[in-house]
Amino acid sequence: MAAPVTVYGPMLSPAVARVAACLLEKDVPFQIEPVDMSKGEHKSPSFLKLQPFGQVPAFKDHLTTVFESRAICRYICDQYADSGNQALFGKKEDGAVGRAAIEQWIESEGQSFNPPSLAIIFQLAFAPMMGRTTDLAVVEQNEAKLAKVLDVYDQRLGESQYFAGDDFSLADLVHLPNADFLVNRTSKAGLITERKNLARWWDDVSSRPAWKKVTEMQSTPRPS
Amino acid sequence: MAAPVTVYGPMLSPAVARVAACLLEKDVPFQIEPVDMSKGEHKSPSFLKLQPFGQVPAFKDHLTTVFESRAICRYICDQYADSGNQALFGKKEDGAVGRAAIEQWIESEGQSFNPPSLAIIFQLAFAPMMGRTTDLAVVEQNEAKLAKVLDVYDQRLGESQYFAGDDFSLADLVHLPNADFLVNRTSKAGLITERKNLARWWDDVSSRPAWKKVTEMQSTPRPS
Repeated sequence: MAAPVTVYGPMLSPAVARVAACLLEKDVPFQIEPVDMSKGEHKSPSFLKLQPFGQVPAFKDHLTTVFESRAICRYICDQYADSGNQALFGKKEDGAVGRAAIEQWIESEGQSFNPPSLAIIFQLAFAPMMGRTTDLAVVEQNEAKLAKVLDVYDQRLGESQYFAGDDFSLADLVHLPNADFLVNRTSKAGLITERKNLARWWDDVSSRPAWKKVTEMQSTPRPS
Repeated sequence: MAAPVTVYGPMLSPAVARVAACLLEKDVPFQIEPVDMSKGEHKSPSFLKLQPFGQVPAFKDHLTTVFESRAICRYICDQYADSGNQALFGKKEDGAVGRAAIEQWIESEGQSFNPPSLAIIFQLAFAPMMGRTTDLAVVEQNEAKLAKVLDVYDQRLGESQYFAGDDFSLADLVHLPNADFLVNRTSKAGLITERKNLARWWDDVSSRPAWKKVTEMQSTPRPS
């Protein structure tokens, strides 16, 4: 029987890896349906029915389709509430207040962490893979922006073990793909590893079995 | 007795207006605590305890504090579930699937609509108020980006009355502040009003009592 959940997109895409990490934390079986973006498959009519902006990932289960990686992660946690990690989107007994503690850091990731970190990753990791020239001015500009965000993160992670408190949650998970790229595929690892609390957090969250499985699924060889 | 809910920040901030619109839809009484950003009040130690990035809005009720406007809106809907508009974050009977239909468009707003629309608003509305020069190259660049997003929106709003289906929801609400600025405070109203389905949607959502109240609360005179 085919797996009931399908994620569309290449595993090397940070947004696809984000969704895969969530499914693995929730012990939800899934299959990856590759989308060859170099052939424009993400702009095909059939893909645009799943994802109207022509971006990856798209997501389908037996009930619905969802797009946008962070929306997909929330859906997985709500729809498969009784499976896998029960604290990922807040424990039931913590109610709306517990969920808000997670949501505010998911939003910080999407609004403050993702734009500069993705810009750096694009210039230092993807551009070389695609045979494009790296724009070092863009790297420098975004490194300055990201450093300010990471200073706030380092302070936060000096107050609690994880972003939202004592439990690993979606607030941490959404950061993993870009953080892993920064640490393992660019020369900018120090942005994370040279901040004490952030480094402690990174050692912890990147060694979780679900994330280790994601990195195994990413086929491109990683620098040792 | 003081109102139990406080929103910190100037009403002219699109993110503050977003939270105010949500509270008004949910019939939750609140007070606005102004933050004088020209005096750097958003970087004061007491404000940074509410919002560690020094941005507006911050939010406090009798139970917790929350930052990031979209996270605050979700919290208001979850915590005050039985008050006001019951469909705003999905009807209970629609469960996780109904909520995902809303979440994917909230994320589109945050990731795809907000960056270019906010850049245009900053250049054409805020820069003149602040005595700064408008950078027309930035406007042009972001107008091209925004047009692509709005083409997808116009197609979507040809399929259903609102972004997530038959009911006005957070998926629509999160777009209101930037859309209102574009239509009423810049020369770029046509981006919305010249797209048929988007124009029909805008006439509908901008005439809701909650949004009309928000625009009344914004003290700066609006062009007629």
